[in-house]
Amino acid sequence: MEKILREFERIDDLQWKGLRIIQNSNMFCFGTDAVLLSHFAGIRKGDKVVDLGTGTGIIPVLLAGRMEDACIYGLEIQPDMVEMANRSILLNQLQSRVKIIEGDIRQAAEILGRGQYTLVVSNPPYKKLGTGLVNPQDVKNIARHEIMCTLDDVLLSASLLLKAGGRFAMVHRPDRMIDIIEGMRKVCLEPKRIRMVHSHVNKPPILVLVEGVLHGRPFLNWMPPLIMYDENQEYTPELKVIYHME
Amino acid sequence: MEKILREFERIDDLQWKGLRIIQNSNMFCFGTDAVLLSHFAGIRKGDKVVDLGTGTGIIPVLLAGRMEDACIYGLEIQPDMVEMANRSILLNQLQSRVKIIEGDIRQAAEILGRGQYTLVVSNPPYKKLGTGLVNPQDVKNIARHEIMCTLDDVLLSASLLLKAGGRFAMVHRPDRMIDIIEGMRKVCLEPKRIRMVHSHVNKPPILVLVEGVLHGRPFLNWMPPLIMYDENQEYTPELKVIYHME
Repeated sequence: MEKILREFERIDDLQWKGLRIIQNSNMFCFGTDAVLLSHFAGIRKGDKVVDLGTGTGIIPVLLAGRMEDACIYGLEIQPDMVEMANRSILLNQLQSRVKIIEGDIRQAAEILGRGQYTLVVSNPPYKKLGTGLVNPQDVKNIARHEIMCTLDDVLLSASLLLKAGGRFAMVHRPDRMIDIIEGMRKVCLEPKRIRMVHSHVNKPPILVLVEGVLHGRPFLNWMPPLIMYDENQEYTPELKVIYHME
Repeated sequence: MEKILREFERIDDLQWKGLRIIQNSNMFCFGTDAVLLSHFAGIRKGDKVVDLGTGTGIIPVLLAGRMEDACIYGLEIQPDMVEMANRSILLNQLQSRVKIIEGDIRQAAEILGRGQYTLVVSNPPYKKLGTGLVNPQDVKNIARHEIMCTLDDVLLSASLLLKAGGRFAMVHRPDRMIDIIEGMRKVCLEPKRIRMVHSHVNKPPILVLVEGVLHGRPFLNWMPPLIMYDENQEYTPELKVIYHME
């Protein structure tokens, strides 16, 4: 197992189906948002999936754990992350079902092919450029800020990758909701399902989970709020289910 | 008191500051949405307010109860409702601060004057025409369905009535959220504050409260969810406060 790790790297056990992920403390590490998105996306039998900006590969690994009969591509622009994510795929022996590909989200349709996918997921950079100090040399910032791609780039690539009727599922910040909704409609991804995520029931939402359908009929389905912690700071029963703790 | 009531009418005591409202069982009666909107709108000292589609006049009455130093106009297209709402204003001795005006929402700016108001509120018809059977002769349907005006009519009139920096507050159905957000931006009402209303914490939202600011800077502020009932079907503490029960 020594050979599989580089400096500053560690193997995190996902505590579910024996799945593990390699992470590097100096790079962007996955968070709750990736786990919530993997659950929200509702992967189906036979889905052909792309994860735009896959980072460590956590979303493809979790989706592969949820559904054996699916073919999943993770696209990532940072060569170091691609190389590390590929080692996680090998570590989990998922190489027949998951491929990590190096490439720019803005070229996703050229790289992976147009109109061939039934599900596109993304946990994209949340922060607009120009909001706060950013060092573009820092690899963590590529995952956090819209340095390499904007929200509209992600949405356009998703719509080009999907078949008509295909689903796009994304996790993002609630304060970008207007941009998300306007941007989705611009590329014919009709918003169909929204779920707000709250740390506590009496707090504003911290994340939004949104699903769009390419050329879908306009009808928006709101889900109950997803509350993470109860008043005793314990995970709520639903969050425990999502985290496979129950 | 007999003379103030017509056939099928009744006086409902609002159980707050001695305010009362005349309603007619055969016409549209106000609901929770009007009460929640009056609270959400956050009327300020000196506000000059228009309520688009005021119906019984419940929102002007509640706003006048919240803020003495404000001047409030209620616009209503149905002459019977205007006449009845005016009797409610007299009954509450609010005639110096609240005026009910007969007119079409689509002519609101011509009737009331452009760019002169700091707050526009509306509890408009929720249902798109073509969704379900509608008898356009039924006065209740004018309040429920987009017969006399559409969502976009309401938004355009609001933006014409407001001063720059003026606020628009509306209650609507969550399934119309995409239309609401797109429609608001089209008329330069930047969505700034959103609150989802849920009957119970584990249920999808039943209403959305949204505030926009004319020519506001894009930044969306999500509020905590407003939960109406607890698991014992009792009003939550917050709802009791909104209803002035505590």
